[in-house]
Amino acid sequence: MNQFEMIRNAAETLHNVARLTPIIPFDSLSPNLFIKAENLQRTGSFKIRGAFNKLSSLSAEEASKGVIACSAGNHAQGVAYSAMRLGMRAVICMPDYAPVMKIKGTRRFGAEVVLVPGNYDDSAKEAKRLADEKGYTFAHPFNDPYVIAGQGTIGLEILSQMPDVEQVVVPIGGGGLISGVAVAIKNLKPDVKVIGVQTVNVPSMYASFGLNEVETLKDRATIADGIHVLTPGDLTFEIVEKYVDDIVTVREDEIEGAMATLMEHSKMVAEGAGATSVAAFMYDRINTDLRTVAVVSGGNVDISTLGNIIERELKRREDNRAI
Amino acid sequence: MNQFEMIRNAAETLHNVARLTPIIPFDSLSPNLFIKAENLQRTGSFKIRGAFNKLSSLSAEEASKGVIACSAGNHAQGVAYSAMRLGMRAVICMPDYAPVMKIKGTRRFGAEVVLVPGNYDDSAKEAKRLADEKGYTFAHPFNDPYVIAGQGTIGLEILSQMPDVEQVVVPIGGGGLISGVAVAIKNLKPDVKVIGVQTVNVPSMYASFGLNEVETLKDRATIADGIHVLTPGDLTFEIVEKYVDDIVTVREDEIEGAMATLMEHSKMVAEGAGATSVAAFMYDRINTDLRTVAVVSGGNVDISTLGNIIERELKRREDNRAI
Repeated sequence: MNQFEMIRNAAETLHNVARLTPIIPFDSLSPNLFIKAENLQRTGSFKIRGAFNKLSSLSAEEASKGVIACSAGNHAQGVAYSAMRLGMRAVICMPDYAPVMKIKGTRRFGAEVVLVPGNYDDSAKEAKRLADEKGYTFAHPFNDPYVIAGQGTIGLEILSQMPDVEQVVVPIGGGGLISGVAVAIKNLKPDVKVIGVQTVNVPSMYASFGLNEVETLKDRATIADGIHVLTPGDLTFEIVEKYVDDIVTVREDEIEGAMATLMEHSKMVAEGAGATSVAAFMYDRINTDLRTVAVVSGGNVDISTLGNIIERELKRREDNRAI
Repeated sequence: MNQFEMIRNAAETLHNVARLTPIIPFDSLSPNLFIKAENLQRTGSFKIRGAFNKLSSLSAEEASKGVIACSAGNHAQGVAYSAMRLGMRAVICMPDYAPVMKIKGTRRFGAEVVLVPGNYDDSAKEAKRLADEKGYTFAHPFNDPYVIAGQGTIGLEILSQMPDVEQVVVPIGGGGLISGVAVAIKNLKPDVKVIGVQTVNVPSMYASFGLNEVETLKDRATIADGIHVLTPGDLTFEIVEKYVDDIVTVREDEIEGAMATLMEHSKMVAEGAGATSVAAFMYDRINTDLRTVAVVSGGNVDISTLGNIIERELKRREDNRAI
């Protein structure tokens, strides 16, 4: 089965599991800007689509042994929720510095959380070790055809909700979301542009795309923790090379500006990763003459972080006024 | 024509003008709680429904003279936008202390803003004086059958979007929104409970409802500026007396708690007035065993206010933890 057929199947699998999230006009910013509000998705991000589709694909024997994932964020909640719905055991390895809120968010769906000392890579290693030892299936956050297919259902929804769309803008971390969306859209309406966005602080797919090979970047901090991935997947990279029209980057202050503008004008809370697509439009990185859907991929950000972002944004506006 | 028939007509009139806003499950708080997201409405609040319906009802002669309204907030934007769509002149009287953001928000739709020294009542007086002098039609923010009918379309939408709803909770200021919603719901499904909410700082309809006559309250500050009304309308009071099952009040800190929880868990920005309905559910003022739609009436709040609310909410959580 090819990747596009897998997306069609995923749409069936996700029926009554993932919400059909609304597309909301952002007309106070531009008559050409629309938001696909995956921040309103169950668990607060699109990740449930890929996670549920992956877990649904397991054999009875695999399912009986359970799944393991490594994530400090949205993928963890997507896997935990999906395992709960499917009656599977789920183990999530998290770095021991993970915010209490995200640990709680994962545990509330009944997942077992293993806190691993060290950084994210240490957690990933421990997850793979446990997978081998206990026979769990490892659920990769992006580099997996079933995960990509699940995320691709967003592409089908966009085309059916807004048939006259001309451009779709998608945040990129490891590339699972944009891979699925691009396969869906380019198979059905190849003229619709598919543009990826990364933070300029962690532009791993952007660099790989430019150099035509998978690059691994040095680590740098970003407010967009949901797309903080230093090495893209090889599967996702291949699809991005084939289908994505362009990748652009936005600065950290622009991401915060987009988060503030989303709150003010579209009444939406987006996490940093989710706001990058709107930032690309707001700050003219893309063609704003096209009828554009910006995928706001998630909204999982705690209010103390929002408070800090608002404070910095107000300071920037004050400074701009002073100039 | 009775008030219910007027609501049916308003639904026709508002087709392609007001958005059909989504109903969003708030399942992280309760499986029984759903939000009617009027913060996602055009102009950021439900007010456009009543304003457009009223302006559409004018005779050609009235329309040619233009309309006038008095408001520092959502009604101003509703009237200004509606007048723009209908090609009418709109004049809005605003107290001269009105926030620059709201003045700009009104002017961007082409309305003429008259800044009046003094308080809200001074602005209202000036608006009525200008209406008499210039022949403008005065567009009342709530005490008008066409305005009530426009707001009532929310009731029709709720019943059609969620046929198994058992309870609808509605913020009350002057009473226009709840009057329309109650007429719609009680005419179609009288068993569905309709509950009103006010801030305990300005409980004008609550007091009037209890005493069975229209009361005027002393002024007190509130974060819920959208429902800061000291005297309910006589038309709206009559409808509330007839159709509304109960009115409850919530505290200012509870409204802020609901605003924070909406941002964290439903990824929505609500203004104070809009969050009162969720506060009533969160803080057990109403029967939470019923399948409940909380109308989040608007989201027009500036980010500096949001920043202050977040700061106070985090302080309260810290204090609660310390106890």
